Amino acid sequence: MDGGGALAQLIGARSVAIVGASERPGASSGFVMRNLLARGYAGRIVPVHLSAPTVFGLPAARSLSDLQDKPDAILVGLPAEAATGVIEEAGSLGIRAAVVLASGFAETGAEGAERQDALVAAARRHGMALCGPNCLGLFNNATGLALYSSRLPPVPRGPVAVLSHSGAMGIAFAHSGRIGVSLMVSAGNAPVTDMPDYLAHLADDPGTQVALLVVEAVRDPQAWTAALERMHAAGKPVVVLRAGRSEVGARASAAHTGALAGSDAAFVAFFRRIGAILVDDGAQALETAVLLSSTAGRRRGRGEPSGLALVGVSGGGLAHASDLASAAGLALPSLAPSTVDGLRDLLPGFATPQNPLDLTGLPFADPSVYETALRLVAADPAIGAIAAVQDVPAGLDANGAAEYAGIASALGAFARSTDIPVAAVTQVPEQHPDFAGGAGEVLPILRGLRPGLGALASLLEPPLPAVVTPPAPILPEKAWVERLAAGPLTEREAKQFLARHGLPVPREDLATTVEEAVAAARGIGFPVAMKIESADILHKTEAGGVVLGVADEDGVRQAFVQIVQSVATWAPNARIAGVLVQEMVTGGIEMLVGVTRHPTFGPVLAIGPGGVLVELLRDVAVSPLPVDPGIVAGMIERTRLSALLAGFRGAPEADRDAAIAAVARVAAIAAAYADVAGTLEINPLVVLPRGRGVRVVDALITA
Amino acid sequence: MDGGGALAQLIGARSVAIVGASERPGASSGFVMRNLLARGYAGRIVPVHLSAPTVFGLPAARSLSDLQDKPDAILVGLPAEAATGVIEEAGSLGIRAAVVLASGFAETGAEGAERQDALVAAARRHGMALCGPNCLGLFNNATGLALYSSRLPPVPRGPVAVLSHSGAMGIAFAHSGRIGVSLMVSAGNAPVTDMPDYLAHLADDPGTQVALLVVEAVRDPQAWTAALERMHAAGKPVVVLRAGRSEVGARASAAHTGALAGSDAAFVAFFRRIGAILVDDGAQALETAVLLSSTAGRRRGRGEPSGLALVGVSGGGLAHASDLASAAGLALPSLAPSTVDGLRDLLPGFATPQNPLDLTGLPFADPSVYETALRLVAADPAIGAIAAVQDVPAGLDANGAAEYAGIASALGAFARSTDIPVAAVTQVPEQHPDFAGGAGEVLPILRGLRPGLGALASLLEPPLPAVVTPPAPILPEKAWVERLAAGPLTEREAKQFLARHGLPVPREDLATTVEEAVAAARGIGFPVAMKIESADILHKTEAGGVVLGVADEDGVRQAFVQIVQSVATWAPNARIAGVLVQEMVTGGIEMLVGVTRHPTFGPVLAIGPGGVLVELLRDVAVSPLPVDPGIVAGMIERTRLSALLAGFRGAPEADRDAAIAAVARVAAIAAAYADVAGTLEINPLVVLPRGRGVRVVDALITA
Repeated sequence: MDGGGALAQLIGARSVAIVGASERPGASSGFVMRNLLARGYAGRIVPVHLSAPTVFGLPAARSLSDLQDKPDAILVGLPAEAATGVIEEAGSLGIRAAVVLASGFAETGAEGAERQDALVAAARRHGMALCGPNCLGLFNNATGLALYSSRLPPVPRGPVAVLSHSGAMGIAFAHSGRIGVSLMVSAGNAPVTDMPDYLAHLADDPGTQVALLVVEAVRDPQAWTAALERMHAAGKPVVVLRAGRSEVGARASAAHTGALAGSDAAFVAFFRRIGAILVDDGAQALETAVLLSSTAGRRRGRGEPSGLALVGVSGGGLAHASDLASAAGLALPSLAPSTVDGLRDLLPGFATPQNPLDLTGLPFADPSVYETALRLVAADPAIGAIAAVQDVPAGLDANGAAEYAGIASALGAFARSTDIPVAAVTQVPEQHPDFAGGAGEVLPILRGLRPGLGALASLLEPPLPAVVTPPAPILPEKAWVERLAAGPLTEREAKQFLARHGLPVPREDLATTVEEAVAAARGIGFPVAMKIESADILHKTEAGGVVLGVADEDGVRQAFVQIVQSVATWAPNARIAGVLVQEMVTGGIEMLVGVTRHPTFGPVLAIGPGGVLVELLRDVAVSPLPVDPGIVAGMIERTRLSALLAGFRGAPEADRDAAIAAVARVAAIAAAYADVAGTLEINPLVVLPRGRGVRVVDALITA
Repeated sequence: MDGGGALAQLIGARSVAIVGASERPGASSGFVMRNLLARGYAGRIVPVHLSAPTVFGLPAARSLSDLQDKPDAILVGLPAEAATGVIEEAGSLGIRAAVVLASGFAETGAEGAERQDALVAAARRHGMALCGPNCLGLFNNATGLALYSSRLPPVPRGPVAVLSHSGAMGIAFAHSGRIGVSLMVSAGNAPVTDMPDYLAHLADDPGTQVALLVVEAVRDPQAWTAALERMHAAGKPVVVLRAGRSEVGARASAAHTGALAGSDAAFVAFFRRIGAILVDDGAQALETAVLLSSTAGRRRGRGEPSGLALVGVSGGGLAHASDLASAAGLALPSLAPSTVDGLRDLLPGFATPQNPLDLTGLPFADPSVYETALRLVAADPAIGAIAAVQDVPAGLDANGAAEYAGIASALGAFARSTDIPVAAVTQVPEQHPDFAGGAGEVLPILRGLRPGLGALASLLEPPLPAVVTPPAPILPEKAWVERLAAGPLTEREAKQFLARHGLPVPREDLATTVEEAVAAARGIGFPVAMKIESADILHKTEAGGVVLGVADEDGVRQAFVQIVQSVATWAPNARIAGVLVQEMVTGGIEMLVGVTRHPTFGPVLAIGPGGVLVELLRDVAVSPLPVDPGIVAGMIERTRLSALLAGFRGAPEADRDAAIAAVARVAAIAAAYADVAGTLEINPLVVLPRGRGVRVVDALITA
């Protein structure tokens, strides 16, 4: 990272030097020179070349040191081996901004990584902003500054800044023709200047209203958090597409950038937490940017979680749109009786005045019906945004166009005067005539139902609750820190550790002989559970090391022998501390509560249905730390825990409040011991019926 | 339905009469006249008008009866009230083909439904083919026959027939510019001539290679099955998009067509069974049609289930494509060592020669690398199709275009000579220059990663197994038919019924007193399960009517009293036959096996994890009947039953073969008693460890 001043100097550079400028066909620096000239850059361009007196007709310098007036920024068009030397030279001359195009750095293996370390050190030493390496460069569409090495046809101007770790995906977006672009950055490996730096700059850039990001890796979560806060304060939404989400996708990405992709769930949880708009694919990314580029997209409904109204002149199209809206998680609420009454007066008797709303063919004859219907729907308290499902056949003659023009102006007139977001969405993504009739700024036309409805979903998604009451921090105890540092805890130790920090555990005793076990069971009361106690056995059930519901003394004797024999067969070399005799906890809901250390995001909390349901349901909600009870409650709602705790199939309602408090406590404990306890997993945390609290029945804590 | 001859006469009509032809602005028949003239229809056009001597310059007849030469087909442009009379008149004159445009039939309520019944009766009486009512009509793009009432700009000619219950969705497809169209049909309510009729015709139409369908309702599954068989035999794929899949979508659809939408799972199972290609949205429908219109799409790999190779020049783009391929269920198999070796020789040292395959920027300098790499990948035994992820910026100058032209011709050369399907897929769906370099027929360019990869997935999906060994039919027994007709069976009767037909049930006895229960338990052996026996109580657990694992005689006494008291509180008016004392079946996997009567598809089989997992997992596989063991095995694989039966978390492997045989048996029983047993549900069917078979532990059978 660099100070914002250096990056402003890069993006706003009024003079640039192209180091290694060459007219040789295929030379990347040659493309840069041509792009600067073709895109009308008005600043000073100085080619730097060892011998040529001119490059592309411009007088060349022999080296940066030879220059009288130092340029605001340089572009290094030389191979990877030479880049660090040039950066060092530029830095010592007081130049604070550079683009390094070359590949051959961390993305290529160990040798490249060393080369990148040297480059980073040089840039940092001089406080430089550095775009790249392993990139195509950047293009400021306001000034024509094209420090950019790929083919660069004219790009429409507009409010969207496109930032991409991947060069090709940035190209796909910027040249799609769907969006107006203010700035285009191919950030490459980005070890010095990364997306958070660009975002912090864009928050203050009057030419940018929306940022559209393709992210392959997150390196500095704190910087991302701060940058999103600045964008949020400036009222500028940030749309994020992640490349390399799936395991196989991450493989492709890692091959490309050498960056660790990390797990998708943690990435999603983190980006939702910091208020980014996550999209699933390129088409949805583009349509979301189109929507947010319009005033319609910058209206934000009524602040309540609210629903979408679908309106159109085709029942079949509305049916398909409803299918895709449901799939996108959009609510299509029923309309209020007063809205329905108004629509009934307006529409033919056979029409069904509901949401989705089929206006029938009537608006072709009388477009005012469309506008009136939209006003009625917009006034409905359940509706937060409206999508008009509308196609227009290409190639219409004048008469045909006139027919659709009536509908278009009705839509436009409504869009100009309403205060809720409204967009037209086409059924297929293909080229449509612009039927917004000059109302495009207030009536975005989103192409394709799936991406268009996905874009609208981002407007209607309720914001995640902020962390309002972070739990009081827990002070780590020295003895436990030392014990944890020494190696994994046994189940018994893990529960002692958790009990010490305020979590309820069942009564239990460790028995090393059959008769000790019988005595322990008598003290605890029947039935009991019995479990092998060994730091070497992580999966006790599979090892035959667990017997539940032991009903009497004879049962204890049998179970003790059976457990010890099974475990000895399963893991002959395991060190066995004894058999744990435990209060049998029955009649509750089993939960999984875990905190693991994510390489990028630090401790990440995961909760979900526990016990055997973990693998069967694979249903977890994930959140970065810290959390508070409100956030934990939201996580429960996002999983089937919600149904289980409410009293599933006749079971009594479980103690949800105690579960929430326990999860928040676990998160606080994990945060306190983060350095020595990388994984802290309780499975199950049994949530007993309401008023009876929770019990930690099994726990696993490792470094 | 009508004979194929009448429909051929409609689609191939060489003379048409337009009944109610009018020059009045907005009259639908006027649009039809203009479309026929504008699209160059060479046949005879006769307007029929009560008084006007000419319409649009063509001599008019006063009525159909006045015509000397009867036309091949008529279009009825009059309101709904008048349509049946015209059809009756035309039929009695020997005209066998008609289009009825008007709405006001079954889609508008009871009165309209009566009107439709009359229309259908008239058409059937005369053996007529009838497009509509409530439709836009049809357009034969080979002859210009535009019996079509919406605006009709020129439509590109080609091999795709577009059939849609929804007029607007047909318009969206036909006018998308993505596909060449042979025939376009807006089928409307389609109570006489429906999609199966059109498909049966298209199977023999040399101008059609692919059918693209928007289906709102299925009325006659047998006709669909036969039509798909004919299309399959002709080598013509059928792509199906269903509008109204979700509940809310079905609401919109029902408002439109009055057709019952039915449940999505049964629809999907039925269409997969008959070999249709199901797509999720309009964009995927179009790209699938584009792919299948090319020779690339008509290659069908090696017949083995096989994987996709992703190839490109952008690591980020490939990462994102991999994410979406995984989401689409496409396998991206690893490449064989010999393929990897070949690629390693070809590519720079820092490249990763794997799938997805990033060729780096090298092909821009040397396009032959691209072609060589594709040949190596195509030779890999794991690869069944190749997608080249490739964007081309719009607006390139000649030099820029030349750069991409090298890659395009490499791709084209490969596509021309390979025997596996290959397509280029762009990252965003926007307009791209045609970079196939004239190779479009062998190298389709699919727009947008999600729809493009979805289209490729349809080529690689393994075909469903056919029903090869349908079970021997079961003869229904008269006594049981009568018993079933008389009302729902108790649990005990249900199991007696199933046992009688060859399914294993636990030992059990009905007790009406405490001491009878004790005696029964002694006979069966402890532990036992005890359950209320009452035809009035369907959810026994919720009613407190089940106690499991009763260990001894005292326990039986307590349980008996507890069950009777609980049930009396839960349902005071329930008729209680006694308490069932049952062999306790433990240690198996619980399965749900159910057959329900679908209003369209008849008996439909559903299986999935049983017991409490039913609601928690909501994980069922569905199939129409009949099934055979191969199909049931496939259904198990599609659910988490597969993992559960294999021995989940240390449990012993379950008796999968016995489970398969039992499910096939249940299906055969349900088919035999379909008239009197609409719902037959076993939950749980307990699958014991391998070699020990299954037990029907609880069953519910209702009319």
